[in-house]
Amino acid sequence: MPADLHATLDPQRKSWIESANDAACDFPIQNLPFGVFSTAGHTTARVGVAIGDSVVDLAVLHEAGLLRLPTATHNVFARPALNDFIALGRDTWRSVRVQLSSLLARDTATLRDDAALRQRALVKLADAKLHLPVEIPGYTDFYSSKEHATNVGSMFRDPKNALLPNWSEMPIGYNGRASSVVVSGTPVRRPNGQLKLPDQDRPVFGACRKLDIELETGFIIGRGNALGEPIACEDAEAHIFGMVLLNDWSARDIQQWEYVPLGPFNAKTFATTISPWIVTLDALEPFRVEQPVQEPQPLEYLRHAGNHAFDIALEVLLRPEGASEATTISSTNFRHMYWSMAQQLAHHTVAGCNTRVGDLMGSGTISGPTPDSFGSLLELTWNAKNPLELKGGGTRGFIEDGDELTLAGWCQGEGYRVGFGACVGKIVPASK
Amino acid sequence: MPADLHATLDPQRKSWIESANDAACDFPIQNLPFGVFSTAGHTTARVGVAIGDSVVDLAVLHEAGLLRLPTATHNVFARPALNDFIALGRDTWRSVRVQLSSLLARDTATLRDDAALRQRALVKLADAKLHLPVEIPGYTDFYSSKEHATNVGSMFRDPKNALLPNWSEMPIGYNGRASSVVVSGTPVRRPNGQLKLPDQDRPVFGACRKLDIELETGFIIGRGNALGEPIACEDAEAHIFGMVLLNDWSARDIQQWEYVPLGPFNAKTFATTISPWIVTLDALEPFRVEQPVQEPQPLEYLRHAGNHAFDIALEVLLRPEGASEATTISSTNFRHMYWSMAQQLAHHTVAGCNTRVGDLMGSGTISGPTPDSFGSLLELTWNAKNPLELKGGGTRGFIEDGDELTLAGWCQGEGYRVGFGACVGKIVPASK
Repeated sequence: MPADLHATLDPQRKSWIESANDAACDFPIQNLPFGVFSTAGHTTARVGVAIGDSVVDLAVLHEAGLLRLPTATHNVFARPALNDFIALGRDTWRSVRVQLSSLLARDTATLRDDAALRQRALVKLADAKLHLPVEIPGYTDFYSSKEHATNVGSMFRDPKNALLPNWSEMPIGYNGRASSVVVSGTPVRRPNGQLKLPDQDRPVFGACRKLDIELETGFIIGRGNALGEPIACEDAEAHIFGMVLLNDWSARDIQQWEYVPLGPFNAKTFATTISPWIVTLDALEPFRVEQPVQEPQPLEYLRHAGNHAFDIALEVLLRPEGASEATTISSTNFRHMYWSMAQQLAHHTVAGCNTRVGDLMGSGTISGPTPDSFGSLLELTWNAKNPLELKGGGTRGFIEDGDELTLAGWCQGEGYRVGFGACVGKIVPASK
Repeated sequence: MPADLHATLDPQRKSWIESANDAACDFPIQNLPFGVFSTAGHTTARVGVAIGDSVVDLAVLHEAGLLRLPTATHNVFARPALNDFIALGRDTWRSVRVQLSSLLARDTATLRDDAALRQRALVKLADAKLHLPVEIPGYTDFYSSKEHATNVGSMFRDPKNALLPNWSEMPIGYNGRASSVVVSGTPVRRPNGQLKLPDQDRPVFGACRKLDIELETGFIIGRGNALGEPIACEDAEAHIFGMVLLNDWSARDIQQWEYVPLGPFNAKTFATTISPWIVTLDALEPFRVEQPVQEPQPLEYLRHAGNHAFDIALEVLLRPEGASEATTISSTNFRHMYWSMAQQLAHHTVAGCNTRVGDLMGSGTISGPTPDSFGSLLELTWNAKNPLELKGGGTRGFIEDGDELTLAGWCQGEGYRVGFGACVGKIVPASK
């Protein structure tokens, strides 16, 4: 890693935006995640970076000549999605990160002391409307938590052979539906569909009765590959721009009736929510850890040296309609994932499939080893057999109308944390 | 149907492009399918319509003031994909069809007698390079042939209960991979992947040994729907721009090992080939037929009055490398499909999923009731147990390197046929 890039990760670095220096803030100067925003007074969506309680408007900084882009031909930040910026390549992402870290550092006067420019370039997060950060040409979802796959296999197949034999040999994945990926805050309508009730011969049509979350992360492709040209596992991380939190909403009753033999469809295509800020892989660098031991050793195309897991604490909160307080219903960590993002991408492309800038790849539900670390209500309540107690009263087997579900995630540094911000969705009743 | 639109379907109408009047030509004046093309001398891809042995350059006709677009603000034909034109809406597609039918009719002198304009506006099909006709934001594949589902179920599950109980209740579908949809003529590389051999405990990595086709059609979304706003079955055809032929290449050995429980992934994401010309639903209007009796009667959201199947003859041809002649290995008809396109689209959106202009929806493998009408080699050879005899010698269980596979399809009218053109792919060896 180049020295100037390494310096952006210095735990001692502080910003002149004082709110960024709070140890509990998701967006310290070490983070600098990218997103797309607009405001009531300036409704054109453009690219920003979150820091402290603010968003830095990169379109304005670029216009003001404060961001040098080695390869750009137009203002890639004055766009309603990050794709044009991302397509400029990793050297440019890194150069912009280095420039921003310097501009926002406590001792740099350029922007700090220019009140007029600051006025135009800084927006309070509270005043920003956040948009989907990328146009997503393709969405793939994996199934890479051993605990999750084991739990589901125990519940719906055979507890003695919960894990299918292919699971330990490859990061199982399937194609998701890109059109219905929405940004945090978008209301989620309870889906209607076919439900097969145990006491009836034929399915009935109606609103889903087993609406669930899946706690996931996602990564965004920063460099694609051509059709027929696989990405080697060792090279895969260079193709990743960054990560988001992802809620893979799931209608368990629709899913159970429809999914054999071709996989989930209407049970998941009604909505997938992602967090608005893309945390770059560079910002996550200090939080690399070893991934779980892989036994059997993967086939050669799935091998990579070094640490490819990341220590990201994750939580799920549930707040019923009108409740003053949310209940934390799950606490887990991304480091438990059996298959790494690099292995997922190598597997995705090994048969020749191409990927494109902006493609979203979901991790699969992230369940930890203990019952309070499971990543879905299906597992947390064991298919509603053991309902969760909520703070302030009430219980939940699955999600009820009006419930607001929030995913949170962060990497804990010394005296700071690199956070993802919230990934929120509130359930509205099904259409009649 | 408006009278001027009805007139475009008149079997007696002839064109001054004489090759279009040949009874065996795929592109008579009754067809007028839309595509995207370029030539060696003019390499910018733009929109064209096939007629006889020629392509009409719509960008040129529009520039020349010969095509009125009620709602257009720019030359939507001077684009490398049909999406902008399609987005103008059904009234515009129909208006352009009526105008073209009139311009190309034998007795219309405007273009016929303008040698200079004809020179610019007409290109020989043989000189045209054909491109993917639309940008495809999403690709979904269905599984709607009862015969196909029964054959596969008999082979891989239980012949006595070959059809799963959900199959008769809904058009089962799954998300495909849009990035690897390619246009006819694009070489297809044999995929590598994990193969689970019967005599070994663990999978091996290598080239697919059971490469197969799936004979399908696809339809293109002409009008999308918003998230949470399903398309009613009765309204669904108004959302369809037209149809193509589709070859859903499948690696059977990769598929069998990977597909439980989340469906096919690497077995199909390496390539899907579509034909270059989109035949509009208007051109198919005279070929509506009753679909097979549906028993049990579908749930209410899947019901529609009238005829929603189409009589489209379909063939698959295989030509080995260097062979002078192709063998017709399957002859079937789209009318056998159990679920209609309208039912597929109603089901796709009933849980709230949104669709977008250009979305591609595959029919699923189209197998007829007799062994020579099956739509895949898996079925035609019963998993290579009964290899096919090829003209000129040789047999096939699955596809070999160098084989060229061609799908063909047409509706037979009186004295003319509305054809799809060819959907071709030749297999190149796997990467080392």
